[in-house]
Amino acid sequence: MWKKPTLIIDTMKVKRNIEKMLRKTMESKVVFRPHFKTHQSGEIGEIFRRKGVDKIAVSSVSMAEYFANHGWNDITIAFPVNLLEINEINRLASTISLNLLVESSFSANFLAEHLSHGAGIFIKIDTGYHRTGIDALNYKEIDSIIEIIKTAEHFQFKGFLAHAGHTYSAKSVSGIEDIYQTSISLLNELKRRYIDDFPKLIISYGDTPSCSIIEDFSNVDEIRPGNFVFYDVMQYQIGSCVTDDIAAAVACPVVAVHPKRSELVIYGGAIHLSKEFITDTEEKKSYGLVVHIDKNGWGSPIPGAYVSSISQEHGIVKMKMEELAQFKPGDIIGILPIHSCLTVNLLSNRSYLAAL
Amino acid sequence: MWKKPTLIIDTMKVKRNIEKMLRKTMESKVVFRPHFKTHQSGEIGEIFRRKGVDKIAVSSVSMAEYFANHGWNDITIAFPVNLLEINEINRLASTISLNLLVESSFSANFLAEHLSHGAGIFIKIDTGYHRTGIDALNYKEIDSIIEIIKTAEHFQFKGFLAHAGHTYSAKSVSGIEDIYQTSISLLNELKRRYIDDFPKLIISYGDTPSCSIIEDFSNVDEIRPGNFVFYDVMQYQIGSCVTDDIAAAVACPVVAVHPKRSELVIYGGAIHLSKEFITDTEEKKSYGLVVHIDKNGWGSPIPGAYVSSISQEHGIVKMKMEELAQFKPGDIIGILPIHSCLTVNLLSNRSYLAAL
Repeated sequence: MWKKPTLIIDTMKVKRNIEKMLRKTMESKVVFRPHFKTHQSGEIGEIFRRKGVDKIAVSSVSMAEYFANHGWNDITIAFPVNLLEINEINRLASTISLNLLVESSFSANFLAEHLSHGAGIFIKIDTGYHRTGIDALNYKEIDSIIEIIKTAEHFQFKGFLAHAGHTYSAKSVSGIEDIYQTSISLLNELKRRYIDDFPKLIISYGDTPSCSIIEDFSNVDEIRPGNFVFYDVMQYQIGSCVTDDIAAAVACPVVAVHPKRSELVIYGGAIHLSKEFITDTEEKKSYGLVVHIDKNGWGSPIPGAYVSSISQEHGIVKMKMEELAQFKPGDIIGILPIHSCLTVNLLSNRSYLAAL
Repeated sequence: MWKKPTLIIDTMKVKRNIEKMLRKTMESKVVFRPHFKTHQSGEIGEIFRRKGVDKIAVSSVSMAEYFANHGWNDITIAFPVNLLEINEINRLASTISLNLLVESSFSANFLAEHLSHGAGIFIKIDTGYHRTGIDALNYKEIDSIIEIIKTAEHFQFKGFLAHAGHTYSAKSVSGIEDIYQTSISLLNELKRRYIDDFPKLIISYGDTPSCSIIEDFSNVDEIRPGNFVFYDVMQYQIGSCVTDDIAAAVACPVVAVHPKRSELVIYGGAIHLSKEFITDTEEKKSYGLVVHIDKNGWGSPIPGAYVSSISQEHGIVKMKMEELAQFKPGDIIGILPIHSCLTVNLLSNRSYLAAL
């Protein structure tokens, strides 16, 4: 059936995950702009479209081109604008509603000079993650970008956008709620400051932990979660989902059984699963949880079983003796990925995609 | 020039790395069977071929098919045989000299029953890495596989093969030498034990740290290093190479400059570089070293600069203020990868390959 490491997507779970998020956004009356970087798939995109989604976020110009070619015509490139791709950006801006992110006067000036078609402009705000964006309190830099925006011919100022990626290292649900509240206050302060000049400006916010845990988005205008479409073991550890929500698994051939070490060797390594890991309470590294899998799907994680190490093509699965005894070379085992965005990126390019 | 994260291969360094390894194998009179999993490239393969190499190792049936299609006809699949690909294996065995690895009676029996063409068989031996292979002292299991080999119609017994991957965690050159000597003694003990029955049996050994550091391979018959073709920051940290030997770099666009945090944001993340990292003596994680790069190549690593964190498409580069002042959005910076096998796997699939 599956001879090589194969990404299996449970489309029933995908639909359920989308519906749940969609329902929350409708109840809170916020715009739902799912981030498509997790699946990068025209096919999965269709599931969103059939549920009425028509606005998306992506993380590169290439991904925007890909989805524009799949009929999406309202796309935010949620990544600091890459000036080297100005020609590609202009081509996209001439055919679809394209939103770009700026986080410096330098980039804003460059765009003001080189954009040949209208594009929406968000100012990327750092609300504490400290990866990208302008500090939410750095009014001087924000003001100077606003001045450029006011005079630039092709700019439509959209508002302020943040990604609170530090929710990924929050230790608890209340930690995530705190980050969310702080971020939203900072963004709303900016909104109040500039709304008179730009009555339509919005706040765009996104990250799967916040969007999964928060129920009421009434102080936000738009949310952009991405990972929730598949979830993964990291999101389960954070508290964003239960294991039954995880909609992606990798089917891997068993190539060796080592009872003395309580280990299986699987064909499934860093080039299939990625090197992302979590550490459990005992500081043990895990590169994935383990499930029984067949053509009807997979069950709950096998208690105590995990991928304990990984090299280019090999994975080592630790497992209790009584579980191990069920396996022999030539069997298939399922791995729930630690970080589905990276696993899907690795395997969908190799087109081992299968849908249940 | 390079608008997106682009893998740049310095083919002069590739040639130098190959020549150096080739010279050592000729002086030690061992067979040189380079592992092609690092580059996975027909083009790089041609550089080896032009230097007289005609035997290779790969880590999957798919990779064997790829290189067989590129005219390679003596290939060892240096991975525990994946029984689910028996049809593909039989197809390959009917057209090229194919060597397979077994590490259990179960797999040996399956092959004995299902192989329809002659194939070389290595027994995979664990000399202390404990990833795969049969414990070098487990004569009972080895004997039982040998018995299967003796009677199987299509088996040509080749000998014992080991990968001492624990050299990667050796803390010093002498640590690597110790691992090498121990592994080689164990393998030679096996050779002595079975040579009367199989006068042509060989010992095949491989891992880049050992093969880079050891000068005299007189107790081995064949070596299979792979990573040495490009090397990387991890090999530099281990002591296998100097930074000037690193033949692969990723050219990444600068998308933001944050002087307050002494950071650049680059377009270049986990889906380009991989999540492999090293920790330095101060326990700081590094996802890559940083170089100036242009169409003529790259220089030495910028002192003190490194990739401090990484997400799907973003990299954060820490850098001293005086260096940072030289960069603006739209510039290009080079990243020397931590683990070139994974970086090349990610980027060559996207065909951003450029050769200097």
